[in-house]
Amino acid sequence: MLDQLDLDRTLDKHDYKRHLGELQLRLYDLQQALFEARRPAMIVFEGWAGTSKVGTIGLLTRRLDPRGLRVHSVTPPRTYETMYPWLYRFWLKTPSYGQLALFDRSWYRQVLAERTTEKTATAEWRSRCEDIVSFERQLADDGTIILKFWLHIDRKEQARRFRKLAADPLTAWQVTSEDRWQNKHYNAVYAAVEDLIARTDTPYAPWSLLPATDKRFARIAVFETITTALETQLGLAATPRADRQDEAFDASGASFRRSLAPAQASGAHATANGHAAPGATAIEMPPMAVSGVLRRADLSQKLEQKAYDHELTELQAKLHLLGFQVYTQKRPVVLVFEGWDAAGKGGAIKRITEKLDPRSYVVHAIAAPAGDDKAHHYLYRFWRRLPPQGNIGIFDRSWYGRVLVERVEGFARADEWQRAFAEINEFERQLVEFGTIVCKFWLHISPEEQLRRFEERQNVRYKAWKLTDEDWRNREKWPQYAEATDEMLLRTSTPAAPWTVVESEDKRFARVKVLRTVVRRLEEELGPIKL
Amino acid sequence: MLDQLDLDRTLDKHDYKRHLGELQLRLYDLQQALFEARRPAMIVFEGWAGTSKVGTIGLLTRRLDPRGLRVHSVTPPRTYETMYPWLYRFWLKTPSYGQLALFDRSWYRQVLAERTTEKTATAEWRSRCEDIVSFERQLADDGTIILKFWLHIDRKEQARRFRKLAADPLTAWQVTSEDRWQNKHYNAVYAAVEDLIARTDTPYAPWSLLPATDKRFARIAVFETITTALETQLGLAATPRADRQDEAFDASGASFRRSLAPAQASGAHATANGHAAPGATAIEMPPMAVSGVLRRADLSQKLEQKAYDHELTELQAKLHLLGFQVYTQKRPVVLVFEGWDAAGKGGAIKRITEKLDPRSYVVHAIAAPAGDDKAHHYLYRFWRRLPPQGNIGIFDRSWYGRVLVERVEGFARADEWQRAFAEINEFERQLVEFGTIVCKFWLHISPEEQLRRFEERQNVRYKAWKLTDEDWRNREKWPQYAEATDEMLLRTSTPAAPWTVVESEDKRFARVKVLRTVVRRLEEELGPIKL
Repeated sequence: MLDQLDLDRTLDKHDYKRHLGELQLRLYDLQQALFEARRPAMIVFEGWAGTSKVGTIGLLTRRLDPRGLRVHSVTPPRTYETMYPWLYRFWLKTPSYGQLALFDRSWYRQVLAERTTEKTATAEWRSRCEDIVSFERQLADDGTIILKFWLHIDRKEQARRFRKLAADPLTAWQVTSEDRWQNKHYNAVYAAVEDLIARTDTPYAPWSLLPATDKRFARIAVFETITTALETQLGLAATPRADRQDEAFDASGASFRRSLAPAQASGAHATANGHAAPGATAIEMPPMAVSGVLRRADLSQKLEQKAYDHELTELQAKLHLLGFQVYTQKRPVVLVFEGWDAAGKGGAIKRITEKLDPRSYVVHAIAAPAGDDKAHHYLYRFWRRLPPQGNIGIFDRSWYGRVLVERVEGFARADEWQRAFAEINEFERQLVEFGTIVCKFWLHISPEEQLRRFEERQNVRYKAWKLTDEDWRNREKWPQYAEATDEMLLRTSTPAAPWTVVESEDKRFARVKVLRTVVRRLEEELGPIKL
Repeated sequence: MLDQLDLDRTLDKHDYKRHLGELQLRLYDLQQALFEARRPAMIVFEGWAGTSKVGTIGLLTRRLDPRGLRVHSVTPPRTYETMYPWLYRFWLKTPSYGQLALFDRSWYRQVLAERTTEKTATAEWRSRCEDIVSFERQLADDGTIILKFWLHIDRKEQARRFRKLAADPLTAWQVTSEDRWQNKHYNAVYAAVEDLIARTDTPYAPWSLLPATDKRFARIAVFETITTALETQLGLAATPRADRQDEAFDASGASFRRSLAPAQASGAHATANGHAAPGATAIEMPPMAVSGVLRRADLSQKLEQKAYDHELTELQAKLHLLGFQVYTQKRPVVLVFEGWDAAGKGGAIKRITEKLDPRSYVVHAIAAPAGDDKAHHYLYRFWRRLPPQGNIGIFDRSWYGRVLVERVEGFARADEWQRAFAEINEFERQLVEFGTIVCKFWLHISPEEQLRRFEERQNVRYKAWKLTDEDWRNREKWPQYAEATDEMLLRTSTPAAPWTVVESEDKRFARVKVLRTVVRRLEEELGPIKL
């Protein structure tokens, strides 16, 4: 998840100022609209120490009507608060109908602290996450709009900020020993954060993960996310936000473009009698996808034939032995391949299977659902193709079709594909908890390279069957697929089941990277192999 | 929960036959309607061994089109099934769109067996329940109609049936060693069943608990529940079922009367393109409330003055000492009082508080929400009134208003009060997991006794203030309140937070029963008191 974020995103001063004024006004109007609709909203700011959450909250509130606003700063629980169930102090901080509550840290801080410093057991951790999910669901069912931000910087940047703050006697006090502890244990906290986000990212209380290296960028991104989500939830997004953003913010390099789900823009929550309207309406998912994972991939990476031959031989030999370990240690393995048409999924899969015992794996080529598969839940196709213990299931395309082709082509409704992120994370977590080893690959090429390969396929007789009209049609929707892919990589790359983006402009490089990733992952789980 | 069921319900042969024919025809039509709407349905039969689940399923299927039907008999997992995640074998049994799947035992059998015979740890148990809830939610989100039955008999009846089966060489094989084990460990299984039901009773996959001592009664109840739920979900309940049932089945002594939620009768799930319609629509809650708890209360119970004085003195002395234990052992205590107007809640509460340290308790008289409380989630009123550790919170009326007055008077919509059962169970589970001791009382009187007390209040000057016009209005809705109460007692009496029905026709009897229950419960939790 977090590793998919582009921490180098920036916004220049001029653009920043231009947007800020407009956004503050929009937010002011939205606060009135919230009040009139009697809808409460909770906005949670979490993130690494040093990401200036307080400054961001200050900026948000500056123009707002203080009567309709509450800011809660969450510290460790006071003694009297420990005398109540742990959510008690947050129950009391829920905003009243029509009110906007901003949380500088929240219930997430508490469970993260418990997990990282007190090392709570996994069972306790799961139970806390369950409590959070039910807490947020109950409030959303009652009409509350919930948005959650994680402001992300890397370890070095955090250390740099601490040094800067510490150097000035006027700000040195801001760096606490807890903050220094966090920097020292950055990696452990990082893993806990990713797991926490994966467990609590729901359609009715979604997370927005934002790169916060550049404060101006982060702040405008926060404003944009909040205003867009409020407008959609309040049914005020008459002009699709996409257009406005294209004009305004998109030009500056950050894409917040989102297709609006009409079903959700209908203001279903308007309340007349103080009772909220039905059900936890899914919130228009905020632009987690300011990641630009794909844009950042270095497609110039290559591998020479000689190095390729050498590496391939060694990795395949290791994989052969690891296949035997999979069998004896009775672990199921799931390898997922997604990627652009002609990116080389088939070739990569072939290099994996070549030296494996043919009884130990199955390759599933996933096309559009048909027959029985079409008459079931979209996961059924994959439930029934799961590998048993000791076996390797290789998926050439997968359940991610739900958030790729089905999303882009409109085969799934917006609420369906938005729900799918949480469903897929749940599904993969169940696999991993059973002991399954899961690796997921996105094979990435440039549109130019794709064209070259398409043309080659057209011209080489024995490759022509591989190219269909559909491939050409998909190609026309490159930007939509890129956006869907970015969001998919961000929302579903979990510690339990991470994505690997494979730069595939050079086939040799791609194949070796896939093999090396699989081998490393299997060695981590099954023990190292010596040749 | 299960203790609230009236196991003496019967249906005579004549009525049984009359209904059966009609219901089988209705079900046949509904199967066609399911098929045309492409909605899958899963009906789960769980219950004690010996409740003839197979016979019931046989009866259900007799007239149905076998092509649209699947019957799954769930045994312990086979070896190959243990090589997959535990839900795998159930994933594969999900019905295709338009199909009806009947489960003779299910995923619930597996987790119950693990819990009772293999003594799985609580964390594992919780995680299994979580898996089930997400499994059912994902399917419901996809349009699946899910109904779950627990067929209930008591331990003696089960033993009687085993003896009868064993006596006949033709049926003796039906009684397995697993069955006998269950009878021997009935109480432990019972506790696990109640906890399992409380954790998995959701609006989109609700449980129906049915008394099954009389097979005819149970079978017709199953038929009625299924046909009503399917009609509602498919939008075919144009004539409210209530009327038809009044004519048909209600006359025979079992009340299935249900007010239909118009929002849910609108067939929101009709599908054109094979994609299911949005969101996990709440299923019209099935008639769990064939309990008649109230009807069965023996209101003739009395206590003479002398015995009352004696018992009161002793119980209050114990309670005084227990109050001190509550403080030293730092446990929060929550006592909930609900009941008919003029049933004596105030008097009972007074007998509890009389000898308690005045610093140790707070009595909350709960009227209609106002001010801040009205502008928040309905639980907020209670979140903020929770007792801290070492304190006793006494609620004269409570969060149960959501499923009583708010339901009957229409202050809450059907989807809101139906959702509230699960919300309340979740809320109380969180309290109990924190260490809170929860007792809940329903003070029960007859309408005649209420009238007598109303008139007395009218005539005795210093009591007149207690009687309002609203009391008279509520009284006119006695049957609706009785139905709401029955369902509340059934759905929210959990092992963690049980209800006690207090026969209150005689005030002395009622007060002593309340005190005795509180004292016993506190002694169980805090240790016995010797005077």
